[in-house]
Amino acid sequence: MNFPSALIEEAVNQLSKFPGVGKKSALRMVLHILKQEPQDVIKLAQAVEQVRTLIKYCNRCHNVSDGELCNICQSHKRNSELVCVVEDLRDVMAIENTSQFNGLYHVLGGVISPINGIGPDELKIASLVSRAETENIKELVIALSATPEGDTTTFYISKKLAHLPIQISTISRGISIGGELEYADEITLGRSIVSRVPYGK
Amino acid sequence: MNFPSALIEEAVNQLSKFPGVGKKSALRMVLHILKQEPQDVIKLAQAVEQVRTLIKYCNRCHNVSDGELCNICQSHKRNSELVCVVEDLRDVMAIENTSQFNGLYHVLGGVISPINGIGPDELKIASLVSRAETENIKELVIALSATPEGDTTTFYISKKLAHLPIQISTISRGISIGGELEYADEITLGRSIVSRVPYGK
Repeated sequence: MNFPSALIEEAVNQLSKFPGVGKKSALRMVLHILKQEPQDVIKLAQAVEQVRTLIKYCNRCHNVSDGELCNICQSHKRNSELVCVVEDLRDVMAIENTSQFNGLYHVLGGVISPINGIGPDELKIASLVSRAETENIKELVIALSATPEGDTTTFYISKKLAHLPIQISTISRGISIGGELEYADEITLGRSIVSRVPYGK
Repeated sequence: MNFPSALIEEAVNQLSKFPGVGKKSALRMVLHILKQEPQDVIKLAQAVEQVRTLIKYCNRCHNVSDGELCNICQSHKRNSELVCVVEDLRDVMAIENTSQFNGLYHVLGGVISPINGIGPDELKIASLVSRAETENIKELVIALSATPEGDTTTFYISKKLAHLPIQISTISRGISIGGELEYADEITLGRSIVSRVPYGK
């Protein structure tokens, strides 16, 4: 693409670094920016800059936070004997939205993925082990994606914690609520038969 | 959505103002930002802010420009007797990419759309009329979208310039090069038959 202005070229190049945003979408975003009031664009730019430069992470669970400890870790209403291990912030938000979990979290910051150069040391696994050793955790729910990387990470964590008297569980897999059998993929359907549960439980 | 940090909430709210970006995509963008180096995010924020605050528009054709006159208007190689009227910057870039047009442009900044509150006065039509009256323009190619709004704008401009000895043309409509007849929509196919051209021309 030949741009009529160096400013536009730079903005398109920067915006097209976002995942799923190509040069054409980035140009559409720049045209949108050009139609906004300057003070609104300055607000946008500040929000983008500040979310990176001012963000803090909870010292305990590594979730993003506005202070040293996140709201969830600070709350006395949460069950601190139950900890859910997730990949990132989005998973915390998704589980919080269900209102079905009353424990604390531990945010790994990713899953083990050798192909992307992510080993256990890039994740918050050592800090999870240290929490497991020092805090009074009874049960650890590992809620990672059902992908080879997620399964590897689940296995690695379970090995690392095998010496501790902590119940390790994973979230259940199966047919979605409201899902029809004929549209389910074979692996999920097969697994839902193998891991069937007694009716009424 | 409940956000664990006010900074994230503000960034998601700002980013979801982009066309086609919802809260979930915006959150994905924020997570991407959090994984970048701070100096890269500052560059992104600066590019976004500067494209709006430092951008200039060509005094003659209203295309974006780094100076008072854009590169196209300044060029002595372009045919200043031929002017192409387009909606916005993207259309200029698309036509420039074809290398088939050697004239100048006139960027309207939109099309007449009463439903969106855009009348002729919101567009650069008065300035087009003044260019037509003062410059030595022989032909005006109106290259607007084949939508009711585009057609209305084309009609409005042709009326406004009717008193001047300027040839007004529009870009041709028809079946795309490489397009198959059976997949063309009826209106385009019908119009391509009505406006058939002698073979070999």
